[in-house]
Amino acid sequence: MSFDATVLTLYPDMFPGTLGQALAGKAHARGDWTLQTVQIRDFATDKHRSVDDTPAGGGAGMVMRADIVAAALDASAGPDDPRPRLLMSPRGGPLTQDRVRDLAAGPGAVIVCGRFEGVDQRVIEARDLEEVSIGDYVLSGGEVAAQVLLDAVIRLLPGVMGNATSGDSESFEDGLLEHPHYTRPPEWEGRAIPDVLTSGNHAKIEAWRREKAEKLTRERRPDLLARTDRGEGA
Amino acid sequence: MSFDATVLTLYPDMFPGTLGQALAGKAHARGDWTLQTVQIRDFATDKHRSVDDTPAGGGAGMVMRADIVAAALDASAGPDDPRPRLLMSPRGGPLTQDRVRDLAAGPGAVIVCGRFEGVDQRVIEARDLEEVSIGDYVLSGGEVAAQVLLDAVIRLLPGVMGNATSGDSESFEDGLLEHPHYTRPPEWEGRAIPDVLTSGNHAKIEAWRREKAEKLTRERRPDLLARTDRGEGA
Repeated sequence: MSFDATVLTLYPDMFPGTLGQALAGKAHARGDWTLQTVQIRDFATDKHRSVDDTPAGGGAGMVMRADIVAAALDASAGPDDPRPRLLMSPRGGPLTQDRVRDLAAGPGAVIVCGRFEGVDQRVIEARDLEEVSIGDYVLSGGEVAAQVLLDAVIRLLPGVMGNATSGDSESFEDGLLEHPHYTRPPEWEGRAIPDVLTSGNHAKIEAWRREKAEKLTRERRPDLLARTDRGEGA
Repeated sequence: MSFDATVLTLYPDMFPGTLGQALAGKAHARGDWTLQTVQIRDFATDKHRSVDDTPAGGGAGMVMRADIVAAALDASAGPDDPRPRLLMSPRGGPLTQDRVRDLAAGPGAVIVCGRFEGVDQRVIEARDLEEVSIGDYVLSGGEVAAQVLLDAVIRLLPGVMGNATSGDSESFEDGLLEHPHYTRPPEWEGRAIPDVLTSGNHAKIEAWRREKAEKLTRERRPDLLARTDRGEGA
């Protein structure tokens, strides 16, 4: 069973982008996931092939038309398609590792990449699009955000990561940022690997890593600790 | 004056990726920003060209070596290089629109794309790398994260956005998610554009948009409102 991604975009040539190489590229070649891109502009109805228009009520920029986006969606994913329909948008709920894990356990995703000022609200409501944000910043379009979401999902698909345990001990999986890493050489520019890590005492190593992870999270992301305290974390 | 990006990566062919087209691609063609990719593997010293090794203290995955990453950095950005040195990493401080604006006002960025479990902590400290996270999820590597960061920055560079005011009224710029958008057709599948938006009454339109933006932010991102209340917002 593969994870099947359908991406609706005005820039299909942006795909597979980073997903065409390395881990995701190899997983695609193996058939662990599939990618279909849909050019939204193919569903335009006028001779200029226009997909957007000026915002009702005035203001800067352009808005993607409900009828065009709906036509592209309806042609790509019928009402019986079990895949979640996502709209990459800074207005969305934040993408989290928990949500990534949920998506990776499902059949795939239909992803609309917003451009311009956004997408007409009516198609979001009428086609039940879930707005997803990858972070608190604004992008020129949803294409790179879709690649972020797919990259995060693909690495969790069965068999994709070389080492199956590698996904369990990393940032966010236990509500903490990950501890610092060290590798050879043992000394570099006068900086040594902390003694505990070369002690061979696994209990001490685990305790050190936990302590460093907690300290880092406290310093950089106290909000993650607060979430865990309130029971929202992993 | 251009914004000069230098990206250190094991996958230089992933660039420019999404940045080669549309808004960012046109801005690159105009010289608004430049991109240099550096293959970290070119700085390996053994015959296998290895860049990583097993983590000190044991555990899954591999760690990028301090000496190799430092050599790549030193060859790409000398000590007098005024550009911030960023390491894309889920352990980093979260990227925000404020930080994006700061970066866009500066000379550029040197960006290290982490892979594997992470990068040896010693090079992070010795070369003063600022860890930056684009969100609370884990990627297979920093390459797509670097493209996200650069995309967000590039669209704010002078002259890049067609409409200069377009950057001011969007999500996060005033600490709120953006209000819903509508455009023609006035009615679609029985759904009409809200009357107020076609009233021509600009004060009422502004009030409606503000109310909708506040309501959406309250529903989806109460954390943003809390931040603004505490004076941390824009």
